[in-house]
Amino acid sequence: MQSRAFLFTAIATAVLASGPVAAAEFEPAAIKAQIARQHDGMVKRLQEWIGQAAIAAENRGYPEGAEHMARLLREVGFQHVARIDTDGKPGVFAMLDAGAPKTVGLYFMYDVKQFDAKEWTSPPLEAALVDRPGLGRVIIGRGAVNQKGPQMAVLAAIDAIRGAGGKLPVNLVLVAEGEEEIGSPHIHQIVQRPEVQAALAKCVGVFMPQAGQDLSGLVTVSLGAKGIIECELVASGLAWGRGPTRDIHSSFKAMVDSPAWRLVQALATLVSADGNTPAIDGFADKARALSAEEKSMIAVAARRRNEAQYKALFGVRRWIDDLPFPQALERLESQPTVNIEGLVAGYTGPGGKTILPHQAVAKLDLRLVPDMTAKEALAALKAHLAKRGFGDIQVTMTGGYDPTSTPASARLIQAQIAVLKRAGIEPMLWPRTAGSYPGYIFTGAPLKLASGHFGLGHGSGAHAPDEYYLIDSVNPKLQGLDGATMSFVEYFFELAK
Amino acid sequence: MQSRAFLFTAIATAVLASGPVAAAEFEPAAIKAQIARQHDGMVKRLQEWIGQAAIAAENRGYPEGAEHMARLLREVGFQHVARIDTDGKPGVFAMLDAGAPKTVGLYFMYDVKQFDAKEWTSPPLEAALVDRPGLGRVIIGRGAVNQKGPQMAVLAAIDAIRGAGGKLPVNLVLVAEGEEEIGSPHIHQIVQRPEVQAALAKCVGVFMPQAGQDLSGLVTVSLGAKGIIECELVASGLAWGRGPTRDIHSSFKAMVDSPAWRLVQALATLVSADGNTPAIDGFADKARALSAEEKSMIAVAARRRNEAQYKALFGVRRWIDDLPFPQALERLESQPTVNIEGLVAGYTGPGGKTILPHQAVAKLDLRLVPDMTAKEALAALKAHLAKRGFGDIQVTMTGGYDPTSTPASARLIQAQIAVLKRAGIEPMLWPRTAGSYPGYIFTGAPLKLASGHFGLGHGSGAHAPDEYYLIDSVNPKLQGLDGATMSFVEYFFELAK
Repeated sequence: MQSRAFLFTAIATAVLASGPVAAAEFEPAAIKAQIARQHDGMVKRLQEWIGQAAIAAENRGYPEGAEHMARLLREVGFQHVARIDTDGKPGVFAMLDAGAPKTVGLYFMYDVKQFDAKEWTSPPLEAALVDRPGLGRVIIGRGAVNQKGPQMAVLAAIDAIRGAGGKLPVNLVLVAEGEEEIGSPHIHQIVQRPEVQAALAKCVGVFMPQAGQDLSGLVTVSLGAKGIIECELVASGLAWGRGPTRDIHSSFKAMVDSPAWRLVQALATLVSADGNTPAIDGFADKARALSAEEKSMIAVAARRRNEAQYKALFGVRRWIDDLPFPQALERLESQPTVNIEGLVAGYTGPGGKTILPHQAVAKLDLRLVPDMTAKEALAALKAHLAKRGFGDIQVTMTGGYDPTSTPASARLIQAQIAVLKRAGIEPMLWPRTAGSYPGYIFTGAPLKLASGHFGLGHGSGAHAPDEYYLIDSVNPKLQGLDGATMSFVEYFFELAK
Repeated sequence: MQSRAFLFTAIATAVLASGPVAAAEFEPAAIKAQIARQHDGMVKRLQEWIGQAAIAAENRGYPEGAEHMARLLREVGFQHVARIDTDGKPGVFAMLDAGAPKTVGLYFMYDVKQFDAKEWTSPPLEAALVDRPGLGRVIIGRGAVNQKGPQMAVLAAIDAIRGAGGKLPVNLVLVAEGEEEIGSPHIHQIVQRPEVQAALAKCVGVFMPQAGQDLSGLVTVSLGAKGIIECELVASGLAWGRGPTRDIHSSFKAMVDSPAWRLVQALATLVSADGNTPAIDGFADKARALSAEEKSMIAVAARRRNEAQYKALFGVRRWIDDLPFPQALERLESQPTVNIEGLVAGYTGPGGKTILPHQAVAKLDLRLVPDMTAKEALAALKAHLAKRGFGDIQVTMTGGYDPTSTPASARLIQAQIAVLKRAGIEPMLWPRTAGSYPGYIFTGAPLKLASGHFGLGHGSGAHAPDEYYLIDSVNPKLQGLDGATMSFVEYFFELAK
């Protein structure tokens, strides 16, 4: 971020007439100096946080992950910090009362995705600082970019305003959960508590911090997110009444049915022959086509984004159907999906093992676009299987939620656009993130808040090996930790207007 | 085995007229007493052997497994014992020259199937002795019945004859391999060595020891075995030129192809919709139908076998197509199969992980009946995939071989029938074992030997958790270790005739 971008002054005069305290003043130079002073300490805090992994799918790091989250919040000045237990993993609810007229909601997650350390070039919990050509010094670790790095930048922003002798210009209400990576199955038990609802009801909106810059430095302002269902399909000899109820010698395949083949044949009906279009009866009936405005957003983004960079990032040579980039992006935005996350049956080790497995499992995720709902999509999947005689295949939804949308006109979004423009970045509006987050809990009834993502900075490898977050940038287009921190400072002051 | 069954005497007078040494005399009472004396020591030796697991798929226990095998052979009197290195795991070649006119071949395997200790009620390498109601004392361990228990009974038989002051009535030529469980990919490098070929050429046939009694005490005399191909099918973004070359976030499924779906769709073409009949073009063209004689063998076996016991053993409620037992057994004997041993793609741990995997693997075994060949079956599989546009799916054959047959009239088989009948067991002739073993290396050119399996005794759970072998039987229909040992003593003397 170029420093000139942050030299704006108007806010300093916007003193609240009737507040109990003097309005916060924005002193960018002092805050930036403070951010620089606290840099090393923040990196160390981020490293410690990455070292404390909480992984819901593995029941690892609880309640330590929640306690760590709570401690970080207390350290930067949240006056009220409470662990909220659920039927799953605990959440954290926190409030920072700055005596400001406006209140902003923050959605954090303290859990991270599973990892296989063997696949990493640097141990995923060691959070090593590594030089990356063309980027600068990055921190490599599970959760680095998703979401501990960006979240730490928010905490650094709060700390820096205070450390520079200033005052946070907005009050904060923060909800953190520890099950985002398994589809937020208990977030309603946190957010729907009366005290949390009451606090959130005062907010101008809720945002989730992110490292929003792609390799070109571009930032996308997303107006929502796809919904998701994560589920397991289990074919078993026991439920089927055919096939074995334990693994048996494979020679008996000639007289014994196979749950693994049953799963394969059932799966094959869920998508088109090329695996790309959902074929679940009724699944996409309510999928809303892109509007002209949305198509226009995508066309702009397609021109500005670097297709080659995206292909390199994914290790992809061709998009589906050899589509040109703009059409591939339209597909990304408009199409619901049925994806295989994992397959596991019988023997999965090296070489072979002559068994007929008694059970086979597919882990699927289904992404939903407006106006599909998670409930209807799950029902469609079950009905599809039952209709084809696969009713014995057990479908267990492990997490998921509806898609979510926020209008571009919302203050939360307009403030993002203003900050980005002042930073010299022409933001790209984007219909929705193809990934998912439980924004529905804020945008749906009764709160009906705006919800979105914001943050400068850069990282990649969410859910993959060698996940990283850029700490010290050598690339003028990309902000490191300090630039990301400053972007949150700017955003708070903008939202305070 | 009832003791009266072994009271036969004729052989004691069959003194060889011109041999350099006195012919071996069969003194059953002395040998049985010796077997009883050495019982505890043999159990201990079997426990030690089970503790020394060699697992080719995991590259575990080599060359120790071969060295252990060689030591066991030396201990019971094989004069020539040589480790034979191959491009894979080493084999062992051994000869015991008893100065007898006849020579018998033995095929041993010292490797065992992989195991997952978590699935066992008793640690798989501890070889604990456990009481099983209705059976007696069993040894639980990987390799207990497949094949260390039965092989130890053969060694005990050799030792007992010597220990009782007698002389082995036949010379022995033994080939042991350490890769049976991965499809014997290098057995030809052992058996085709000139010195091994020369030794085997003198044999009346080659047998593999087994615990041949089912829960009813019945014994099946098998006249061959199905062939097998074990192979991996790998669909990958790299080979395909579509999909990602590393695991990426699953949200991109809307614009990126999926190797996992590709594998599922390819697999679905390999079998009928119910998963039971191979649909690979040309795969079964040379499958020979059952002869009237073979059908008659199966009809007899179906009457004598206890269907309920088989169903309970497999945890199966229904056979394929709800076939009656005789027709299910005909299917077992006559039909080639395409079986899924394992599926593995993407995330296979607990819960889900929102990734689009760059690769998906199916582990298959294909069982072959005469006159199919492994070479032609593999070619058919590859051609089938290529014809349907799945030519990028990599097919790697990890092991396998042709089916094998031996006529009922062979001396090796007739001797089995004679021993079993004297034991009061009416043997059931059986067209072929549905499982596979590399008998082709003996029955094929140039040796063209008879080959089969023999042994009393009982065990179960080959390739499965809690594999066991019966040591001390409380079931009058089933032989324990000592009875199994005595059956091999009888067989050697019968073959010497």
